[in-house]
Amino acid sequence: MVYTGFEAQHDHTSGYTERLGAPLGGSVRIRLRTTLPVTAVALKVVQVGEIETVAAQEIAAPEGTDGRWFEATLPLHDRRVRYAWQLKLPGDHLNLTALGLHHSRRGFRSWFQYLPGHVAPEWAWRSVFYQIFPDRFRNGDPDNDVQTGEYIYEGRPVEHVAWDHPVDAHGDIHGHYGGDLNGVTQALPYLRDLGINGLWLTPIFVSPSNHRYDITDYRQVDPHLGGQAAWDELVTAAGQCGIRIVLDGVFNHVGNEHALFRAALAREDAPERALFTWRDEPGKPPYHAFFDVPTLPKIDYCNEAAIEEFFSGERSVVRHWLRRGAAGWRLDVAHMIGSGGSDADNLPLHRTLKAAAREEQADAYVFGERFFDPEHALDGQGEDGSMNYHGFGLPVMQWLAGATYYQEPSQINGEEVADILWDAYHALPPQVALSMFNLLESHDIGRAHFRLEGDRSRYLAALTLLLAYPGVPCMYYGSEIGLSQSRAGNMPWCREPMPWDPALWDMSLRGQVQALVSVRRRTAALQEGHLRFLHAEPDALAFLRELTVDTGRPSRAVALASRRPGAHLVTLTIPQGLWRDVQSGETIDGGVVTLDAVGGRLLVQDA
Amino acid sequence: MVYTGFEAQHDHTSGYTERLGAPLGGSVRIRLRTTLPVTAVALKVVQVGEIETVAAQEIAAPEGTDGRWFEATLPLHDRRVRYAWQLKLPGDHLNLTALGLHHSRRGFRSWFQYLPGHVAPEWAWRSVFYQIFPDRFRNGDPDNDVQTGEYIYEGRPVEHVAWDHPVDAHGDIHGHYGGDLNGVTQALPYLRDLGINGLWLTPIFVSPSNHRYDITDYRQVDPHLGGQAAWDELVTAAGQCGIRIVLDGVFNHVGNEHALFRAALAREDAPERALFTWRDEPGKPPYHAFFDVPTLPKIDYCNEAAIEEFFSGERSVVRHWLRRGAAGWRLDVAHMIGSGGSDADNLPLHRTLKAAAREEQADAYVFGERFFDPEHALDGQGEDGSMNYHGFGLPVMQWLAGATYYQEPSQINGEEVADILWDAYHALPPQVALSMFNLLESHDIGRAHFRLEGDRSRYLAALTLLLAYPGVPCMYYGSEIGLSQSRAGNMPWCREPMPWDPALWDMSLRGQVQALVSVRRRTAALQEGHLRFLHAEPDALAFLRELTVDTGRPSRAVALASRRPGAHLVTLTIPQGLWRDVQSGETIDGGVVTLDAVGGRLLVQDA
Repeated sequence: MVYTGFEAQHDHTSGYTERLGAPLGGSVRIRLRTTLPVTAVALKVVQVGEIETVAAQEIAAPEGTDGRWFEATLPLHDRRVRYAWQLKLPGDHLNLTALGLHHSRRGFRSWFQYLPGHVAPEWAWRSVFYQIFPDRFRNGDPDNDVQTGEYIYEGRPVEHVAWDHPVDAHGDIHGHYGGDLNGVTQALPYLRDLGINGLWLTPIFVSPSNHRYDITDYRQVDPHLGGQAAWDELVTAAGQCGIRIVLDGVFNHVGNEHALFRAALAREDAPERALFTWRDEPGKPPYHAFFDVPTLPKIDYCNEAAIEEFFSGERSVVRHWLRRGAAGWRLDVAHMIGSGGSDADNLPLHRTLKAAAREEQADAYVFGERFFDPEHALDGQGEDGSMNYHGFGLPVMQWLAGATYYQEPSQINGEEVADILWDAYHALPPQVALSMFNLLESHDIGRAHFRLEGDRSRYLAALTLLLAYPGVPCMYYGSEIGLSQSRAGNMPWCREPMPWDPALWDMSLRGQVQALVSVRRRTAALQEGHLRFLHAEPDALAFLRELTVDTGRPSRAVALASRRPGAHLVTLTIPQGLWRDVQSGETIDGGVVTLDAVGGRLLVQDA
Repeated sequence: MVYTGFEAQHDHTSGYTERLGAPLGGSVRIRLRTTLPVTAVALKVVQVGEIETVAAQEIAAPEGTDGRWFEATLPLHDRRVRYAWQLKLPGDHLNLTALGLHHSRRGFRSWFQYLPGHVAPEWAWRSVFYQIFPDRFRNGDPDNDVQTGEYIYEGRPVEHVAWDHPVDAHGDIHGHYGGDLNGVTQALPYLRDLGINGLWLTPIFVSPSNHRYDITDYRQVDPHLGGQAAWDELVTAAGQCGIRIVLDGVFNHVGNEHALFRAALAREDAPERALFTWRDEPGKPPYHAFFDVPTLPKIDYCNEAAIEEFFSGERSVVRHWLRRGAAGWRLDVAHMIGSGGSDADNLPLHRTLKAAAREEQADAYVFGERFFDPEHALDGQGEDGSMNYHGFGLPVMQWLAGATYYQEPSQINGEEVADILWDAYHALPPQVALSMFNLLESHDIGRAHFRLEGDRSRYLAALTLLLAYPGVPCMYYGSEIGLSQSRAGNMPWCREPMPWDPALWDMSLRGQVQALVSVRRRTAALQEGHLRFLHAEPDALAFLRELTVDTGRPSRAVALASRRPGAHLVTLTIPQGLWRDVQSGETIDGGVVTLDAVGGRLLVQDA
């Protein structure tokens, strides 16, 4: 673990980087602040595999800042510029990279990155998202409910399940609770009150299962969710509340009822056959499919028609819904999308997809479900970011719960958590790191509340980290009122319906969540600031978010979390100045402080 | 810094990996040994971006080994398979990756790698190389010397310089000392006696400068080096001594006297113009050139004719010299090679180059000069390895010399050196890590002997690390007899002629170097073993090389080095058993040992 000290600082915020996304072929002024006794500072830039040296000049320190300031001009010659600072000292020299200060010349992976011409969906940085699994959030119109026996799905009639009936194994993918988009519209005041301004809806298109990841028609909202009218009404009403909606794009596979797949099956010479990858392997479907599940045939993007249909054609699915009010796409199993039954061409396909989305809507937010390490895909040219299981949610929950989402016990400690988070964060371009979609739980893995055994302290610690960490925070429906699950495991147990009787809500938890959401929405340092770990010990960790504006003055926030059951006093050094505790309102003087970390602490300091 | 403990082990050697390079689409049996109280072990394999679990079975521990052994079958579904082990323990579980044991799931960069179908030039692993700059090594035939005023080069007549005249700035690229291939042939007994069995010759083709990186004719040996006859004689004689020769391939640019470039300049409509990238930029040559030097026009590999001429054509330069006895290619500025005046298509071009070389000679050794971090290029499909400045030579010498090769003072300590070496090593596929071309110095950077101020202890420490580190060690001509330079700096100062009067040699140093080379040539653990750092402190570091054969028994070597001027006792734990000190012949019992690290120690233990 390398902690960057306060001796030298450079980051993407405007006090240190003139602007983000300046055009390719141009240049941008960047700065370094240091309290070290430097004799000279230079900028090192990777160009065609060589390291070029650019002179840096000392400039007047902005008023009210400490240390000396240096400025250099970074040439933007490449789609992904890598650079580092070299600090000469009496009898020594150091290199400052995104990883910190080193005597050695670190590998390029750890150098600072600049993405010329890159446009990030900055509205997402200022958003707090809420994930809704439509069948389980709210039943706004019982008339559109799936009825028991209405149709046969995977050999068994579907069932209508009562809202207060706990999820059981029998219900799994056949049980429909009746939630719909009408319900989401009805709940907008509730969501606005919570402070939410972004929704991610899992799939809403025509589909026979309750999760709707086996889509029959990508251009029709499922009538059981209220159909097109309910969507239009929701988008309009949400827009009036300042809430944007990201849809779930299932582009790796279609449902086996999809017209293209049925056409492909119907005739050996159907042109639609080219949209799928056929094979002859014993014990497997005669076509490539998601995890070999026959109902989920995999789309083959070798075929230009597939690319046109889903991504880039004038009437593509991606374009269609952006035109009809969606604010972006969450891409299901983004890592699997590819040609020839594999993930070949994955990155170029994502570039094509994002380019089409951006043509349609300049700030569309496109992020992939990449459940495992997504680093290789995050060069800024494809997805804006990815779901941050690897670099946030899984390690944080493993630490707080003492077990993985598969209930494997783990004695991971805080130092290791800080290490993996920092390793994942520092290697990303800053706009990508800020566009990562952070979450503790989802429709795919067990609820945090359950995994933490309802322990309020650890649960609030988890939520504090979520709302304070770089990236776009997303809460799962019902987390704010303590919705849990009836038994251990991932899906379907994590998909209990949302109770709407306030008597069933944990109102005090909801108040604390509101406070966290509110401060996140108000605090630029939390939305766009740099990250620096301040402290890690087996049962606690703390980090700083810092945003330095062009006058050189920073605004800051500190998050601190413990996993102990009782009081846990942690001593750490935070920057000077006056801090405010978000939950207690208490005022704290910076410097060396001792704080009770239990329940999570979030301190903010305004510029 | 993460040190792998001895609690769990898996590596590429045959005790743990059935074989290297098994065919794509097949599988290979792999093993894990552990002394931890595991309740179960599983293998985790990355497949199409997902992590699949493969069961591991406990097997009988091979006789004489400690711990428990587990075996699993690794599916070889991809050109670069990534995998890790999961160890379940009571109330805990750990992941074993190439980086070590972790509670977290590390990023894929740190997972073990297997390269199906990969063929490594294993002879190079068993070789000790010697770099010769032909003009400065030995003048075998004074009749072929460049004469003063023989031609004009860059506006100034070339000069013949007396062998005992130190390099001066005036001589730079105009001064020719008269060394030739005839001289190398004459020196073969000397080289064989030293234990060398690989030569890297900097360019030998027709070229006006003394360094010959501005080539006029890639298919003719420079007559001043003895021409084709001297090459043929050298190859034959070297072959009889068991010495293979790697040539220097300058494929980024040609010399401006090259026929293709002259033809391109001659006529606006010459087809040869397509081999270069033309431009119109004030103050720069009208074509892209190596660092804008007009005499070094850059080849544009957009053009299929360029690819054919140098790499893959039936009569390509790459093929031509492999047919005439070369054992491989060192690729000058490999990172710059590309299309359109840039490094675009760099990796695909290197794949094409290597494929052609391998068609010509199944075990040709192809490695690139990538002066800076080469990791992104080293997936095994292009170069076999690269010159290891980044991950070995530069940090080691920075630590021992207290300064970089640009004489920037540095207080880098041993921990940081171990950290950067380990970071670079662990992320490479094993066959690539073993094919890295390790060096302390070269014709491009200052001599180690000079940079260490002639200090014998630190110099031997450097050589000990060089001969013990994973990768192919290469000494620079004259290093073995203490050849130094007349003043500080890199080229041309590091290119002094080799003295051939033994009275000028440091014979005792030569004996110590011989001992190191000899043990390297005899010890499989040094040639193919795994790496594990054992110890790092500011002034000392130690590592283990371990090769476990299929009976489960390891052979081992330990290298220890200090940068202190006087005695430096270091206590460290080395594996049990009897060890022999290579220099003193002394026998040492394993376990916790205290050794004087000054001058470097190399201990070996046979299986």
